[in-house]
Amino acid sequence: MKRLLLSNLILISIAAATTLKVPSRYSTIQAAIDASSNGDTVLVAPGTYVESYQGASAQQDKRSEEGYDPELRLKELGITLPIPPTPVANYVNGVRTGNLIFLAGKGPKRADGSWIIGKVGADVTIEQGYEAAQLTAINQLAVLKAMLGDLNQVTRVVKVLGMVNSDPSFTDQPKVINGFSDLIVAVFGERGRHARAAVGMASLPRGIAVEIEMIVEVRN
Amino acid sequence: MKRLLLSNLILISIAAATTLKVPSRYSTIQAAIDASSNGDTVLVAPGTYVESYQGASAQQDKRSEEGYDPELRLKELGITLPIPPTPVANYVNGVRTGNLIFLAGKGPKRADGSWIIGKVGADVTIEQGYEAAQLTAINQLAVLKAMLGDLNQVTRVVKVLGMVNSDPSFTDQPKVINGFSDLIVAVFGERGRHARAAVGMASLPRGIAVEIEMIVEVRN
Amino acid sequence: MKRLLLSNLILISIAAATTLKVPSRYSTIQAAIDASSNGDTVLVAPGTYVESYQGASAQQDKRSEEGYDPELRLKELGITLPIPPTPVANYVNGVRTGNLIFLAGKGPKRADGSWIIGKVGADVTIEQGYEAAQLTAINQLAVLKAMLGDLNQVTRVVKVLGMVNSDPSFTDQPKVINGFSDLIVAVFGERGRHARAAVGMASLPRGIAVEIEMIVEVRN
Repeated sequence: MKRLLLSNLILISIAAATTLKVPSRYSTIQAAIDASSNGDTVLVAPGTYVESYQGASAQQDKRSEEGYDPELRLKELGITLPIPPTPVANYVNGVRTGNLIFLAGKGPKRADGSWIIGKVGADVTIEQGYEAAQLTAINQLAVLKAMLGDLNQVTRVVKVLGMVNSDPSFTDQPKVINGFSDLIVAVFGERGRHARAAVGMASLPRGIAVEIEMIVEVRN
Repeated sequence: MKRLLLSNLILISIAAATTLKVPSRYSTIQAAIDASSNGDTVLVAPGTYVESYQGASAQQDKRSEEGYDPELRLKELGITLPIPPTPVANYVNGVRTGNLIFLAGKGPKRADGSWIIGKVGADVTIEQGYEAAQLTAINQLAVLKAMLGDLNQVTRVVKVLGMVNSDPSFTDQPKVINGFSDLIVAVFGERGRHARAAVGMASLPRGIAVEIEMIVEVRN
Repeated sequence: MKRLLLSNLILISIAAATTLKVPSRYSTIQAAIDASSNGDTVLVAPGTYVESYQGASAQQDKRSEEGYDPELRLKELGITLPIPPTPVANYVNGVRTGNLIFLAGKGPKRADGSWIIGKVGADVTIEQGYEAAQLTAINQLAVLKAMLGDLNQVTRVVKVLGMVNSDPSFTDQPKVINGFSDLIVAVFGERGRHARAAVGMASLPRGIAVEIEMIVEVRN
């Protein structure tokens, strides 16, 4: 997974910097990025792309959004979901109640079973923290996939609590948890935009760099 | 906003100390406070006023509660809500799912764009922390107002997670987060009383003194 | 309560170690434990017992689960619930919205009014933290009992946020919060298995060792 992530870091870090809103005329993100590097303005600023689209483009976007397929998106991003672990205690990876799924806190476990550990601001840089949050997003998607069978069952990502193992002087938690938020929006599009808190913890299990909870809304 | 808050500090600190349950025969909080200072026992102890009302008074209260208007209350308290900021990343200020709105964590941003920063118990006093929590409540109300148009759409404040940027030895988080809870109940009355946790964080974004999340129930 | 807890520590610690899935032919947990110590394999490994039951046993289990009575379970465990405290501020012990109850954060208050305080990893051992989490579970059950009248109204424990007052170097939060999770599953059986995060806080009110929030689903 580490290798896989690295092979996709170009795509994902571009996504992080600019938000990968890809008009539907591009069949893949790579095609859109290629077009972008050729001077085509297909990528817009993060957090603003809905508002910044106008007229016909906005309508086209809406159609694109309705047809958004997170399973396809995962393939385009080159992400393979791991098998979620079975918790070794009296708790579970997620519980559904009505149309909501409350997911347990997950951390940056790599496919080889190792973890990204350390306090951000001391042992771990913001960039490494961002990568840890990204990896955590993949692990949460793996849980959702196992629970739902198909990520298209997700109608909205509702709430994220991003907990950063922080040196007491570290104050850039949002830049770390963006690794989670950016990947979630890369996969779910507009449905992926969520309410969030990104905060600093005294310590986390195993010394992991981040632990992140998520609440999602799913179809009936 | 700082100035505005100060001009209302008398009202708000009275509210904090005594809970402003105003029988409906007083047209404004100020009238009730005036009556109170004249020896009329219109204000009762915090956290107890529902239970402490009896018989006919309780019935009158119920009617008063049904007619409770948080928009009017804001005017009476002299609070003007700011325009909520647009998050600069892949998250939003709040997400509605069914009858619930999950609000993102907000902090003590003043109307001039500055923030109340520092660790409570070290750089920031309990009183300053209380003010920071109060300011955060106003910022959350601003988000709700922008989402709902009218705060009368709120049927119940459900849950508050009050996160205090804490020196490791600081143990009075509830006294800080009361600044949030007291203002919410001042605005929403009984509907504003919520389940809550008030806890100490290692650090928070920008070094803000508090960050507070909220879940509210709204009308269909 | 302290004494009461101690008198049940044998039962509870066995539950923690092995998960007390008791086939319905045993009338009490003690009977099952006796049978187990006689070589009968009535107890199975934690976190795996649903999956590990097969065929006819699984069906019997399902019937057993449907007939699971948390009120009876409390009696079998010898647990007497305290009267929940009335919060002395503008918040409440729990709020119901739809089929969900959001419970306020609670801590390890003993029946004599004293609290288990201190930072786990420094002043408090993992074992003492486990006991603190167990006591907190009892206090949350007391709130639920007061709100619902009958714990059989609980259809599922949905989510737990276990906050451990942690020395910055402490990384075994899950072992502490297991005290909560194990007791909840001992009382509610399969319905008690929840999504969870167990994390380290810089500090907590009064210096308590743990503070734990819970969301439960209840009947219409």
